Amino acid sequence: MTTPRWLNAPETPYLLIDESRYVRNITRLYTHVEGLGSQVRPHLKTLRSPEAARYLLKHPDSPATVSTLAEAEGFADAGYTNILYAVGIAPHKLARAAKLIKRGVNLHLLLDTPEQALALADYARQHEVVFSVFIEVDCDGHRGGLPPDREALVALARAVHGNGAVLTGLMAHAGESYGCRTDEAIRQAAQNECDAIRLAGRRVRELGIPCPVLSVGATPTAHFSTELAGITEVRAGVFTTFDLVMKNVGVCEIDDIALSVVTTVTGHNRDKNWVFIDAGWMAMSRDRGTASQATDYGYGLVCNMAGQPYDGVCLSITNQEHGIIALSADASLTTEDFPVGTRLRILPNHACATAAMHSVYQVLMRDGQQRTWNRITGW
Amino acid sequence: MTTPRWLNAPETPYLLIDESRYVRNITRLYTHVEGLGSQVRPHLKTLRSPEAARYLLKHPDSPATVSTLAEAEGFADAGYTNILYAVGIAPHKLARAAKLIKRGVNLHLLLDTPEQALALADYARQHEVVFSVFIEVDCDGHRGGLPPDREALVALARAVHGNGAVLTGLMAHAGESYGCRTDEAIRQAAQNECDAIRLAGRRVRELGIPCPVLSVGATPTAHFSTELAGITEVRAGVFTTFDLVMKNVGVCEIDDIALSVVTTVTGHNRDKNWVFIDAGWMAMSRDRGTASQATDYGYGLVCNMAGQPYDGVCLSITNQEHGIIALSADASLTTEDFPVGTRLRILPNHACATAAMHSVYQVLMRDGQQRTWNRITGW
Repeated sequence: MTTPRWLNAPETPYLLIDESRYVRNITRLYTHVEGLGSQVRPHLKTLRSPEAARYLLKHPDSPATVSTLAEAEGFADAGYTNILYAVGIAPHKLARAAKLIKRGVNLHLLLDTPEQALALADYARQHEVVFSVFIEVDCDGHRGGLPPDREALVALARAVHGNGAVLTGLMAHAGESYGCRTDEAIRQAAQNECDAIRLAGRRVRELGIPCPVLSVGATPTAHFSTELAGITEVRAGVFTTFDLVMKNVGVCEIDDIALSVVTTVTGHNRDKNWVFIDAGWMAMSRDRGTASQATDYGYGLVCNMAGQPYDGVCLSITNQEHGIIALSADASLTTEDFPVGTRLRILPNHACATAAMHSVYQVLMRDGQQRTWNRITGW
Repeated sequence: MTTPRWLNAPETPYLLIDESRYVRNITRLYTHVEGLGSQVRPHLKTLRSPEAARYLLKHPDSPATVSTLAEAEGFADAGYTNILYAVGIAPHKLARAAKLIKRGVNLHLLLDTPEQALALADYARQHEVVFSVFIEVDCDGHRGGLPPDREALVALARAVHGNGAVLTGLMAHAGESYGCRTDEAIRQAAQNECDAIRLAGRRVRELGIPCPVLSVGATPTAHFSTELAGITEVRAGVFTTFDLVMKNVGVCEIDDIALSVVTTVTGHNRDKNWVFIDAGWMAMSRDRGTASQATDYGYGLVCNMAGQPYDGVCLSITNQEHGIIALSADASLTTEDFPVGTRLRILPNHACATAAMHSVYQVLMRDGQQRTWNRITGW
């Protein structure tokens, strides 16, 4: 497809989403997970966009995951009603959560401590509300949650269920899988994530607590799972757009990356073989996720406006509103190949971090037309 | 002063500015620069806030610096009329710049290439506008600009002046001074920055071009300059709030840092001595500026709500909406010292990057009252 002329119209830097790749990425994961008999509860934190969510959530009660109450409220405003707020609940946030529940949203809260259960029971009693709760299960020591074999897990399930709350499910997140270096390691992480949540599920259900939902997920494990027996749902977020970190982990190819930042060349330092662009860290974020991976892309991989990468050409240095593409001295490309005014597309290290720097996205639709998607901002 | 109770009201994470420190930092730099016979042209890119700018710009035509046209438009809306857009001008941005000029704003553009000068002359001729221009002078090889002794500099001055533009000034930025490790090195960088711009000024003025403004500045050099003879103005940005990077460079003390992120404890991992908070990289930014400095503060230094740091306690790991404070095993503090619901303040590595994650700031006024300042967003 030729590159539509409208791509040269919006002020730079701007964030561009390629709808065709976006749809392909979604189809790939949904087909995989549904083929294994489970369903996707997409994490909406990457784009935080109601327009983007329409591709993922087919019905008002399609399951969704969010990382802030601002997202829960924004997606509720967009008509979605089955929302897991997948960050441990802070007691002072219960009033906002209760307000969503009273609006008719099936909001699920996450916790892993007795203090949270107590705060929630107190609030529920005082305000005549019943919370739907997930307990976080720690499958790999990555962050929070209770190990599935600990007494603390069943104790917490008992403390939660019936005390102002219904224990709807258990949730694990194989966060360590982002550090995997082989497909086999990701497959093992996926198996481990499922095994942990199934063990936790058996132990809680043996108490007579139904706990109907077993939820797993991280973008790498979601794509490499080989069986999902008994797993109700799989969460993944960055898979819709992917990024260079995911390419390095081995979950996608460069050609799958659906998000880029469009920038303009503003000058050169010919002595140093530097090209200056108007995308600095304000447009790209400070994320250097590929620094510790097999291929370090600096602050991003440089492509032409058709989306074709220049081999080995990266955004090397960023200041707030300046980017520097340092061309290597022996490269076939020189500053003459990037005249002032040239537009380029930069693929990001980490889509979630780059998207967070923009409040609106331009979308290249499959038919070449332009759309605008909006981001829900704040907390 | 006791900690006002209202600090516990806003939803966390939120960005807090300490007005008393903010004012002290401003007074310190203005006294220093004005004492040396020059004036400050503050860079407004750190907070991008009209309410914050009122402390810096006493008159509508007080000089200001910005990093985007969105800021130029926002500060023009707030009534300010003397604005240097200190990023090399991309040709397609001339129409927006011209619109500001036609509104009566004394907008100054920056350039360092013949291509930019040509684009500007073309635009000016076609649209009957005259641009005020600064040429960027490279004093230390940090980024853009022309070395002061090069023929290219006088050639560009000739090409600009009178061709749809007035050459208002020359601008240098000692960007390498952020990497200085001693006060003496910063003093030398300051001297070098002034010497470079004075040499450039002499060479341009010898052409008979008045070029009235010689502009230097970076936060480190601005504070360590010992003479400013012939220097019209000094630019600095992050000095109003400072941050941990500036503390490590030696420009401020921890007690001068006027910006923090207020967060809530959401849980613990007692096996690992970890405290979870609701400030991840969405609230702090991905900036790891102290990683390469003498003291690495992780993603920030943890303080109590009175602003007193816990010695050696840092925000160790961040995910999007999770922060992890990893307490050292031999520390006097344990997870018991940070119960769920506790509020903390985190001092940032890089104030510009952290402020960029927030669209509104809460301000602790000198009298203990609360104010809200707004951020100009986008490009």
